[in-house]
Amino acid sequence: MEIGSLDTPVATVDLDAVERNIARMQGYCDEHGLAFRPHIKTHKLPAVAHMQVRAGAVGITCQKLGEAEVMEAAGLRDILLSFPLVGAAKAERLAALAGEATVSVVGDSEHVARGLSDALAQAGAGVDFLVECDTGFGRTGVQSPEAAAELAELADGLPGLRFAGLMTYPTLPESGPWLRAAREAIEARGLRVERVSAGGTPTHLINHLVGEVTEVRAGTYVYGDRSCIANGSVPLEDCALRIRATVVSRPTPDRAILDSGSKTLTNDPAEEASGGGHGLIVEYPEARIYTLSEEHGHVDVSACSPRPDVGEVVTIVPNHACGCTNMHDEVVVHRAGHVVGTWAVAARGKLR
Amino acid sequence: MEIGSLDTPVATVDLDAVERNIARMQGYCDEHGLAFRPHIKTHKLPAVAHMQVRAGAVGITCQKLGEAEVMEAAGLRDILLSFPLVGAAKAERLAALAGEATVSVVGDSEHVARGLSDALAQAGAGVDFLVECDTGFGRTGVQSPEAAAELAELADGLPGLRFAGLMTYPTLPESGPWLRAAREAIEARGLRVERVSAGGTPTHLINHLVGEVTEVRAGTYVYGDRSCIANGSVPLEDCALRIRATVVSRPTPDRAILDSGSKTLTNDPAEEASGGGHGLIVEYPEARIYTLSEEHGHVDVSACSPRPDVGEVVTIVPNHACGCTNMHDEVVVHRAGHVVGTWAVAARGKLR
Repeated sequence: MEIGSLDTPVATVDLDAVERNIARMQGYCDEHGLAFRPHIKTHKLPAVAHMQVRAGAVGITCQKLGEAEVMEAAGLRDILLSFPLVGAAKAERLAALAGEATVSVVGDSEHVARGLSDALAQAGAGVDFLVECDTGFGRTGVQSPEAAAELAELADGLPGLRFAGLMTYPTLPESGPWLRAAREAIEARGLRVERVSAGGTPTHLINHLVGEVTEVRAGTYVYGDRSCIANGSVPLEDCALRIRATVVSRPTPDRAILDSGSKTLTNDPAEEASGGGHGLIVEYPEARIYTLSEEHGHVDVSACSPRPDVGEVVTIVPNHACGCTNMHDEVVVHRAGHVVGTWAVAARGKLR
Repeated sequence: MEIGSLDTPVATVDLDAVERNIARMQGYCDEHGLAFRPHIKTHKLPAVAHMQVRAGAVGITCQKLGEAEVMEAAGLRDILLSFPLVGAAKAERLAALAGEATVSVVGDSEHVARGLSDALAQAGAGVDFLVECDTGFGRTGVQSPEAAAELAELADGLPGLRFAGLMTYPTLPESGPWLRAAREAIEARGLRVERVSAGGTPTHLINHLVGEVTEVRAGTYVYGDRSCIANGSVPLEDCALRIRATVVSRPTPDRAILDSGSKTLTNDPAEEASGGGHGLIVEYPEARIYTLSEEHGHVDVSACSPRPDVGEVVTIVPNHACGCTNMHDEVVVHRAGHVVGTWAVAARGKLR
């Protein structure tokens, strides 16, 4: 079966492109002696996680505990949870997971460290603890190297937790000096920083330049998307996740309506350099998806020659692969257009 | 069990508020002699669709064929598909559906009408056909009353289709004159306009004023959301769908991070009058969810006194209920905080 015969809208994944992306990122990390720990938030597919590990990844990264549970059940044995786990329910689930796989966690507060420790100690389980550091992005993370050292010492003294190192997102030029200062402050307290995990697809090529980083995390690189094209991290031909959509209406000469709206593509924006809009139509690069209803894509085709007809199927590279794939219960996997299989997006919707 | 003991993030639905919203909208339609055909795109729950029909709705509206199949299987017997169906695969599925339930469809092109007719005729099935009219919104729909009359005549002559009337979205003040001109042009061709279906929650109160409308469609009204509060269609206390989220980090005095990002809330914008941001935090109305990562909600709490602590659970009214509920595989249904059940969002992800 060819992807051309699939009904739309449908999410397709080009497995050859996925393999190229995996090889390129793993090659970069291998070349620079960096461990690679891909983030599965993008694909949410156990089969792709196994491909990443077979290619040389030391393990995987998950954002939510529910994603980690799906991946562990599918045989992934080394998992970093890069999102702070809060609350007794999650701490108990973490303790159970830590009994099945090698698990590391992150935290930026005493609250998180103590909550996890209580449940782990009760279950007789243990995990490695990385202190999350805000090295410039302004999201989660302790705000100073000294605060990192304080939390490292506290966590290392709690039952069930073993301080293992530092984590930040994304890798920025200023991350290196920040992380060095934190490492020195931690070493001054007699602890060792075994591991410094940093991440993000857009800036992944600076991980070996900023210093201190020992482990790279990246997710979006595996599929690529319109933002990746704009920031240069993945070329169009390696954008593996695409949405096949049908023109369902041509109400005016300048307007085409697709069967793919925000419930298929998401309203996630692309990086500014993409020029706005809601995705790239490969066959009509001059077209502009200027707005999305829930199920309608509104396209300005005034710059196109020729222009698409009702019934025509087009291919969309989404703005943001991680958001887009999360809308789909399954993806159709292909090589050069030949369908290889239909894979359940097994970790989709695992919000807790 | 109380919703206060649920782990987060979790989508909760206040069934008392749902009933108030259903009663209010049905009451408006009954008062003005309008048929009501709620759009299930918002809730995607068979149980709520049955509540709407029991309250007096003539049937339901679905956007995608896959939604309609889920609803038909759950016992809903009268379904309008308000999205143009294109392609042989969907036409065949429509024919099968039409053998099980009373189905009406919309279209704005000869392409759509002929494609459906071919499959329906082959299956010996029939559906009512409504001509979709662009009465001012600028999405799908024929562009003039004369074009509506031409398509009506064409469709009525095709096997398997019976011209039944007109459909537009949303109801606008200018919709009335437009639809009257279309009806007159159609009657001049010897056809009857039995039904004029118009819709949209924000402008629903003008359906009896614009003229011509016989059937009202609305979806969002059943849950309400931040946009509904802003446009006055649903008050805060009747906003039934809420996300319970936990503060997982307080990295700075002014910043709180929630465990709910774009994969929980969506990046759907709210109406401008809402003041921007990504949702209303009920307990901290001065807080502003200023950006979303996939799993992090970034909140400016500088205007709050007191400010939320790590571990605290807050309640979010999302910008857009229809997008938000679509992220969740299930919703926890409650009355006054007492959990009534956990309902699968059965028509979620039915994109085709």
